Amino acid sequence: MSAHAESEVRQQRAEGVQVVGQSVTRLEDPPLVRGEACFAGDVNFPRQLHMRVVRSQVAHGRILSIDTAEALALKGVTSVWTGADVASIPPIPFRATKVTGLEPYCQPILAQERVRYVGEPVAVVFAEDAYLAEDAAELVLADIEVLPPVMFADAEPGEFLPGLSTEPTVIRKGYGDVAAAFAAAHDVVALDLSVGRHSGVPLECRGAVARYDAARDVLEMYGAAKKSHWNRDEMAKMLGRSPSSFHLYEGHVGGGFGVRGEIYPEDVLVCLGALRLRRPVKWQEDRRENLMATNHSREQRHLVEAAIDADGRILGIRNKFFHAQGAYSRTHGARVADMSAGLLLGPYRVPAYEVAGHFRLVNKTPAATYRSPGRYETTFVRERLMDAIARRVGIDPVQARRRNLIRADEMPYARPLDALGTDVVLDSGDYDGLMDKTLARLDWDRLQAELARRRAAGEYVGLGLAMFVEKSGLGPSDMVRLTVDVTGAVELVTGAGSVGQGMETVLAQICAQELGVDYRRVRVHHGRTDLIEFGNGAHASRVTVMSGSATQIAARKVRAKALGVAARMLDTTPDELEIVDGQVRPRGGAGGPATTLADVARYLHPSSRTSDGHEPGLSAEGWFYSDHMNYPYGVHAAQVRVDGATGQVVVEKYLVAYDVGRAVNPMLIDGQIVGGLAQGLGGALFEEFTYDEAGQPLSTTFADYVMVSAHEMPDVDVLITEDAPSPLNPMGLKGAGEGGTNGVGAAVAAAVDDALQAPGFVTRLPIKAMRVRQLLASRAL
Amino acid sequence: MSAHAESEVRQQRAEGVQVVGQSVTRLEDPPLVRGEACFAGDVNFPRQLHMRVVRSQVAHGRILSIDTAEALALKGVTSVWTGADVASIPPIPFRATKVTGLEPYCQPILAQERVRYVGEPVAVVFAEDAYLAEDAAELVLADIEVLPPVMFADAEPGEFLPGLSTEPTVIRKGYGDVAAAFAAAHDVVALDLSVGRHSGVPLECRGAVARYDAARDVLEMYGAAKKSHWNRDEMAKMLGRSPSSFHLYEGHVGGGFGVRGEIYPEDVLVCLGALRLRRPVKWQEDRRENLMATNHSREQRHLVEAAIDADGRILGIRNKFFHAQGAYSRTHGARVADMSAGLLLGPYRVPAYEVAGHFRLVNKTPAATYRSPGRYETTFVRERLMDAIARRVGIDPVQARRRNLIRADEMPYARPLDALGTDVVLDSGDYDGLMDKTLARLDWDRLQAELARRRAAGEYVGLGLAMFVEKSGLGPSDMVRLTVDVTGAVELVTGAGSVGQGMETVLAQICAQELGVDYRRVRVHHGRTDLIEFGNGAHASRVTVMSGSATQIAARKVRAKALGVAARMLDTTPDELEIVDGQVRPRGGAGGPATTLADVARYLHPSSRTSDGHEPGLSAEGWFYSDHMNYPYGVHAAQVRVDGATGQVVVEKYLVAYDVGRAVNPMLIDGQIVGGLAQGLGGALFEEFTYDEAGQPLSTTFADYVMVSAHEMPDVDVLITEDAPSPLNPMGLKGAGEGGTNGVGAAVAAAVDDALQAPGFVTRLPIKAMRVRQLLASRAL
Repeated sequence: MSAHAESEVRQQRAEGVQVVGQSVTRLEDPPLVRGEACFAGDVNFPRQLHMRVVRSQVAHGRILSIDTAEALALKGVTSVWTGADVASIPPIPFRATKVTGLEPYCQPILAQERVRYVGEPVAVVFAEDAYLAEDAAELVLADIEVLPPVMFADAEPGEFLPGLSTEPTVIRKGYGDVAAAFAAAHDVVALDLSVGRHSGVPLECRGAVARYDAARDVLEMYGAAKKSHWNRDEMAKMLGRSPSSFHLYEGHVGGGFGVRGEIYPEDVLVCLGALRLRRPVKWQEDRRENLMATNHSREQRHLVEAAIDADGRILGIRNKFFHAQGAYSRTHGARVADMSAGLLLGPYRVPAYEVAGHFRLVNKTPAATYRSPGRYETTFVRERLMDAIARRVGIDPVQARRRNLIRADEMPYARPLDALGTDVVLDSGDYDGLMDKTLARLDWDRLQAELARRRAAGEYVGLGLAMFVEKSGLGPSDMVRLTVDVTGAVELVTGAGSVGQGMETVLAQICAQELGVDYRRVRVHHGRTDLIEFGNGAHASRVTVMSGSATQIAARKVRAKALGVAARMLDTTPDELEIVDGQVRPRGGAGGPATTLADVARYLHPSSRTSDGHEPGLSAEGWFYSDHMNYPYGVHAAQVRVDGATGQVVVEKYLVAYDVGRAVNPMLIDGQIVGGLAQGLGGALFEEFTYDEAGQPLSTTFADYVMVSAHEMPDVDVLITEDAPSPLNPMGLKGAGEGGTNGVGAAVAAAVDDALQAPGFVTRLPIKAMRVRQLLASRAL
Repeated sequence: MSAHAESEVRQQRAEGVQVVGQSVTRLEDPPLVRGEACFAGDVNFPRQLHMRVVRSQVAHGRILSIDTAEALALKGVTSVWTGADVASIPPIPFRATKVTGLEPYCQPILAQERVRYVGEPVAVVFAEDAYLAEDAAELVLADIEVLPPVMFADAEPGEFLPGLSTEPTVIRKGYGDVAAAFAAAHDVVALDLSVGRHSGVPLECRGAVARYDAARDVLEMYGAAKKSHWNRDEMAKMLGRSPSSFHLYEGHVGGGFGVRGEIYPEDVLVCLGALRLRRPVKWQEDRRENLMATNHSREQRHLVEAAIDADGRILGIRNKFFHAQGAYSRTHGARVADMSAGLLLGPYRVPAYEVAGHFRLVNKTPAATYRSPGRYETTFVRERLMDAIARRVGIDPVQARRRNLIRADEMPYARPLDALGTDVVLDSGDYDGLMDKTLARLDWDRLQAELARRRAAGEYVGLGLAMFVEKSGLGPSDMVRLTVDVTGAVELVTGAGSVGQGMETVLAQICAQELGVDYRRVRVHHGRTDLIEFGNGAHASRVTVMSGSATQIAARKVRAKALGVAARMLDTTPDELEIVDGQVRPRGGAGGPATTLADVARYLHPSSRTSDGHEPGLSAEGWFYSDHMNYPYGVHAAQVRVDGATGQVVVEKYLVAYDVGRAVNPMLIDGQIVGGLAQGLGGALFEEFTYDEAGQPLSTTFADYVMVSAHEMPDVDVLITEDAPSPLNPMGLKGAGEGGTNGVGAAVAAAVDDALQAPGFVTRLPIKAMRVRQLLASRAL
């Protein structure tokens, strides 16, 4: 973990042995470091077929015919399907949002009549091995009449397809008298800002293996991730099955980031293949497919303007933006646009607000959520705006922010907006306080002086700040089931998902602390629909908050049951007992008769005939409910150096200060933040899915789509604070998965402006070296 | 099903649509008839190894050395283990009985120092395919010093092994003043009766596939049956794992009959193989192994005597018997001997009783339970005794029985004995009444007259009767979990087992009736330890009684929840509603707003935010508890013809009258009875595991071990009655799995006596043609 993290957290631990708050090692790691992990590609069944997708090579076109004869003639090819073969399967649905009218834009599992982006599945091949399937896929000949593609989201709306507009919806939210605010303004600051198309690119490409168990009439899909239950339920509908006859299994997942684990055409196709062909079907995406078929994200242009008073205080904001969705509305529907509209305002007091989010289709890969969706984009927009306001009124950027921050004593702060279907009520926060800590941690004045010296010496160095509010802990509910077996081993079954973030460890810590056991005795089962009826997977930084709180409730129930039984066994009262490391013993280390959770479980075994009055089993379910999200918040600070010759931006140092309410495992939060930062940096400086004018993707290899490597990573300082526990759950938890990503584009942009001494220079992410060189070249003229 | 079954049952159904009591078709059948079943042999995993057991070829000997070098040299052989390699694994335990002192007699998974029966595992080979494993096993050379075997159970006890007696225990039970009864007796009837060694021989031989999932640290064993949870728990102990890290999966099972699904050495060996070798391990028994390695049963000699008064009323019974266990005490411990001691008395009033059951080791395959264990044997003994009493006092066998039957008004009838750890309290029964119905059904007088005519015409024809009391519904508890999904499909998870008996259908019927759905919408998951914490499997005719009652309780809970929610949805009260075929509607077909269980489940979905006050999910657990067994009872009647030339006994007609309290599915009970009858007939006339004096088994093929085929099966009439519902559960259920087997030996013996007009001729089962010929030949002299 990074050098300084955890210090604040540890200071708050005084009493006794606490495992919540400790940076214990991950339960997830042993199989990973031993090479025993089971990713989708590791799942195999005897007699399995391999599936290969034939993808559209044009961005927009009308399918005239698809010739499968040559592919089918290949020995070992079992079946080739085109759109006609799956026409009865409904398109892939999206999760409920308040946005309506998206249904006609959902994607069929194989293209019907038209293709709409390069990479769209138009046919699928099933064969005895993966190589054969790939060879056969190349023999499927789709005759497509090429049509002109729509490549830009910000033109006037037009026809995307016959009868379908390029603009399915405009998301409008707002409150206050915006017109009056602008009319009364001392000044108006207006910016035109864009974020490029990039996305989560997990180390593990997507994969899925489906198997139909005819003996039990159960369809199984391995390689699930993120949303096993919702995906199971919706795919069951598509396939005409009851959810209880269809199960998804999440194994190891090599990174989720919002993109992995959504329902894609291939998931449904492997399931349908297994059902129809009565053999297991395996599919594994390659990297080229991953870069053009897995969800993209981010591409958005904002026309934003702020009405301000003479001191730089915001009176109102207008936010008009264009969201380049891609060729279909995917499983998230319009969530990114919805959150961009509902969450732009961040930590600032904004008396009046008006947003029009233009949700637009373009002939590119469909887009959806990616780590900090709608916030990475809008933090860039909002913080660019704050820097511009500071400049306009001639004050320091920190001062400009402080003048507009919502104060700690205003919490909870209800904003008359909604996001993800919940009312936006900032639950807790001390934004000013975190700014203080950030500046102290940075040694702000000394640092500014040092950079001034370096600039005087001819270096292009600069410092940028961004403040933001994240959101986490999406409800409405979560459940875990907890069982202690007769050896004292604890089993925790959750419908939450593990995409590598460490949720097994975090839930085990919470369980261990409440129950009084070693966290390493807790086995967490996740992402398997056969083991638990409901689940919400892993998204929206919700697992620690929602599943963690449910775990606490379940653990307390189990603890109460154990103490009640132990008291009877030991002829005492529950109040006299404590549970430490699985031992049930007299409180405070007093001597006397003791027992163990294992013994209590044996006492409660249904065969023991001793469980008088108690229902058998040392187990409980815990449900946690929440109608609101909670809102962690943070400050990013970037120190950059620009290479005057190449225009390349080098991030020298980076600080993330983040208040998570309560840190269950600071090391894991640190990991989340540093990893998230790397992804944010990619979008700020390197990563972009670009297209030519015909809609051909130009970023289909890692030579073209440039990710951040260790070499580009700066020295990172992470300051985790716990100043504002959430009032919405007993532990005060807030999620920590996205705070490392959120502010990177904004902070780096400000730092580059500063380094170049070119206020307002950065208006678009990623910041390309060529543009920097152009600026420097123009100065040299 | 047999011709006449079900008639009595159907008469009792009056009101409405009832699925309990109907002979609906089996849910189990579709995959079976389509060839899609999944037996142990159908389970395969990539990279699996095949295991082959090297078995002792001598009945008793000292292992001098085992040379594995030649086997290991074979390409593709991965490992060969001998006793030394598994010496750290504890021997296979047995389930609790009140009998103590059996521990030293438990079997290690590979022979240590000595071999004790032909077929005992002495080494095990793991190889790339099954053929190679078999070849390699033949190259393992065990050098064994042959020692004299113990082959008879009824000699004076001696030394079985150094320090271990041939008689681990003598089971003594009794009550009343037996000495006084015999002293006061008008007469004493004494018999020496034996039942031969035979057993359940399922169509499917045993098989198991184990896999260690290192990614989750979970060990899995497929091919489980009968007692998944207990086996899991005990094997976990042997392997040093927590139960929650080890799961057993029951697929289709080709017959259980008490022998399949116990823990055998091979089960533990495949698991250990998977753990140590880190590859899946598959093992499949062949028929020769099945006949010499799977549990035998039955072999028992009884020296029984009854003190009677002048009218043939029993004053007291002494029962001394010798149980030939085999070379080890297996998972059942001394259960067969214990039940033989505790349940011999059947339906008769016996004022004083004394039993000494000599549990003896012999150098044969270990024995354990087989369908109607301890009752098949003791019904033969008791009913032979009743026939002898009738003869002694010169009355009709029916009359002799009637004089001694416990009357219906004496129920419940507490007998001061215990069996399977429970007090023997006959819960309900009208034994006289069932005898009346049996005689009426047989048209007794007409039948006797007809047989007399045939005898006069020179035929050896006879009629024999046997009465018996079965036991069923062993407690102490059982649980099912019931869930209705959003499509209205019902999932029932039970820890009970399915060994082909139709339990899925029966539980679905009970669930369907209580809940108001089509039974075909109920999916039953059984025998999987990962899906439910506790379970009792399938044995002791307990599933319908215990799991069925738990199902009723769970279904009523779900129904109540559904009605409560539906009432809120429909703005009415639960009392006004009924559930028919998944529709929740105004009671009695009144019009008005209605809904469905699917809609209620949707209302209760945790994402719906409408479940105000209700915990999410349309689901419930049902626990049922019972401290006592219940006691179905029956009459068997056999009509036989003996071929004077060959001595072969041909069973012409057979009636089983059986009172099951409440018949859930008469067709399935009929199937249980007819199938059980076939097995009872095997033991009565054909099947026997014989050995030569050196302990070599002589019945290791189906040419030598002669099973009943369709050809030998008589015309069977089944009379299912419901005159004596059990007071121990709300539906009045009693189990029906063993009543078809119980009385066969006894009834056939009586019929053969009658056919040969040789009272008391049959003293041993099976009745061999050779002995009949000897009798007829001796008459001809």
